[in-house]
Amino acid sequence: MRRAFRLAKRVGVVGTTRIEQSLKILESRKDIISLGAGEPDFPAPPNVIKAAEKFLEEGYTHYSPMQGRHELREALAKKLKKENKIDADPEEIIVCCGSKEAILLSSLVTLDAGDETIIPDPGYLAFRPIVEAVDAKAVSVNLDESDNFEVHPENLEKLITRKTRMLILNTPANPTGTVMSKKILEEIADIVIEKNLIALVDEAYEKLIYGKARHVSMAGLNGMFDHVITTQSFSKTYAMCGFRVGYAAANEKIIKEMKEFKLTTTLAAPTFAQLAAVDALQNSRKYVAKMRKEYDRRRRLITKRINQIPNIYLKNIPQGAFYIFPNITETKMKSEKFVDFLLSKAKVAVIAGTEFGKHGEGFVRMSYATAYDKIEEAMDRIESSVRKLR
Amino acid sequence: MRRAFRLAKRVGVVGTTRIEQSLKILESRKDIISLGAGEPDFPAPPNVIKAAEKFLEEGYTHYSPMQGRHELREALAKKLKKENKIDADPEEIIVCCGSKEAILLSSLVTLDAGDETIIPDPGYLAFRPIVEAVDAKAVSVNLDESDNFEVHPENLEKLITRKTRMLILNTPANPTGTVMSKKILEEIADIVIEKNLIALVDEAYEKLIYGKARHVSMAGLNGMFDHVITTQSFSKTYAMCGFRVGYAAANEKIIKEMKEFKLTTTLAAPTFAQLAAVDALQNSRKYVAKMRKEYDRRRRLITKRINQIPNIYLKNIPQGAFYIFPNITETKMKSEKFVDFLLSKAKVAVIAGTEFGKHGEGFVRMSYATAYDKIEEAMDRIESSVRKLR
Repeated sequence: MRRAFRLAKRVGVVGTTRIEQSLKILESRKDIISLGAGEPDFPAPPNVIKAAEKFLEEGYTHYSPMQGRHELREALAKKLKKENKIDADPEEIIVCCGSKEAILLSSLVTLDAGDETIIPDPGYLAFRPIVEAVDAKAVSVNLDESDNFEVHPENLEKLITRKTRMLILNTPANPTGTVMSKKILEEIADIVIEKNLIALVDEAYEKLIYGKARHVSMAGLNGMFDHVITTQSFSKTYAMCGFRVGYAAANEKIIKEMKEFKLTTTLAAPTFAQLAAVDALQNSRKYVAKMRKEYDRRRRLITKRINQIPNIYLKNIPQGAFYIFPNITETKMKSEKFVDFLLSKAKVAVIAGTEFGKHGEGFVRMSYATAYDKIEEAMDRIESSVRKLR
Repeated sequence: MRRAFRLAKRVGVVGTTRIEQSLKILESRKDIISLGAGEPDFPAPPNVIKAAEKFLEEGYTHYSPMQGRHELREALAKKLKKENKIDADPEEIIVCCGSKEAILLSSLVTLDAGDETIIPDPGYLAFRPIVEAVDAKAVSVNLDESDNFEVHPENLEKLITRKTRMLILNTPANPTGTVMSKKILEEIADIVIEKNLIALVDEAYEKLIYGKARHVSMAGLNGMFDHVITTQSFSKTYAMCGFRVGYAAANEKIIKEMKEFKLTTTLAAPTFAQLAAVDALQNSRKYVAKMRKEYDRRRRLITKRINQIPNIYLKNIPQGAFYIFPNITETKMKSEKFVDFLLSKAKVAVIAGTEFGKHGEGFVRMSYATAYDKIEEAMDRIESSVRKLR
């Protein structure tokens, strides 16, 4: 008998994600409306498609430099200065296969085994696995509905130990849609400086901001550049998920080491996709504005409708990303059970809050990155199913 | 004064690569002929470009499933069975952003901190950094020119300790061009089974085989599938480096865990690039044959010319990849010094053997992934410079 090969202990720690599995089931079931999407339902901008085709035709099918094409890093330096007040030159930017790779590289170069990183809970579901993949420890800072899921600087400070090296923030946030205020970012910045930490701020949804909210980059705050790794992406802003282009901006010393570690991950992002991304930055303003306007219209619909459903409450109207994160505790069901209930009774797919951390219990994530009429229909179905519960 | 932020200890271990740096300098110097290339000089096949454009137009710009598009995994399952005698079904295949990511994922799921992995020296320069990135230890098995840089099973066996978990092989090999024989693969397979190891076999150059050599996949040997992770790529075979599509085949349990860890690396490979890769598998046979024929013509040129140069010896004619790895010890220069000498005196760029491990001292890597007439000119220049040395 062959002995079973033992996998790394890391495997048990990182665990499994249920999101993809459940979304896969949905693909084959046309009767279900999915509010599970974690990506734009829009196609990529036509100018970006054209640009990608042009660069394919012109033979940009060879490796890109590990740090990314200089044309893209130069365009990003301008963008970061103008839009984020981040004063990064092209040497302080690295292009990756999505901002997720940038977060992994950041972790590889800053975290030793056993070091601690504070992550938001509920928060983007890849943060904990990435931190644990490099054998570091993820410590949750609990975010509360009563606080509009803001990171409370005082709660954060209590979690800092001698082993804390990094703090991961996400604004606008997945799954809550919360946009961090400048005031809170400034308070956290003071803590980062005082404790000599590095803040990794994931700004993948920076352009999906509604109402009076404004996106503020911590790296653009006075004196913060050397203490912050900013990650941004083309995936959400430009509906370019399938192109795999994201990036990080940080102190040159950090970026230089991240570049070295690209040799251990993907070597480089797709070349023609990087060049098409330059076109996205330069020529997609109207397209992005149009998408944002439509997201906002759907946001107003879903936030109004959700609060008309008994036992489901959305305390705060989220001002960013394309998610709502309503409280479902009054249905007397746990998050996972409520997800199963909606799937079987309402034929609507949503994601359990617990996918985003233990503190997500009692909530579900609903995405409005789907058509307006589908959201209407989904809300009708949810309302009808939940009313029958009483 | 701001305290300097301390980076992870890992940073010092993984170290820096000189290849990209030196190649970057060359881009701006038209007087230099580069034999440094680690990628095909050919453009991607026209049918692949057309297919990528078609899938871009059709809106395949959204995320792919983490494990990769099923169309591609199904086509790969057929390919692996037919060409490699590897009996993997689509669930036993994962698509990555290049086979490098597949090697990282393999390491993440099999190696705990402190575990040992045996790597070839000289060998592909990313093996050691990848193993060290997951806090495991890379142990070199020295390959000798006298042995045609074959992995000697006896030498390998001596290095196995209680901590050894993985063995990394590469056939055809970078930087030596050596194609592992079936006999040696079988002997190593016996050791892998006996010691309950996992063999990771990097077969990125599998299609670049010349003369009487045949590529043999260890995973296709009787009873070996569950003990081998096979990585292959579209980059070298189809000149698709810029598309970032590679893959691994292995036991379903391993692939399932690798898929989970995609959440920590890149989530998925570029979607339209994966679909274009299906077209590569189906419709690029002639193009690949044409490239291989031209590589072979260059190989015959460079191997003949190199041995006419005094004090440089190529003991064995390599039968795979697109590199030669000649011995330069009789020039009385160390590898790095000889590289500098060629760059300044002959205006030819080559890579120091020490980039591929300590045991690469006394050798340099020359790539023939460049035009025939440039190789001729480079050989003229090298010969003239070396003759002046005497």
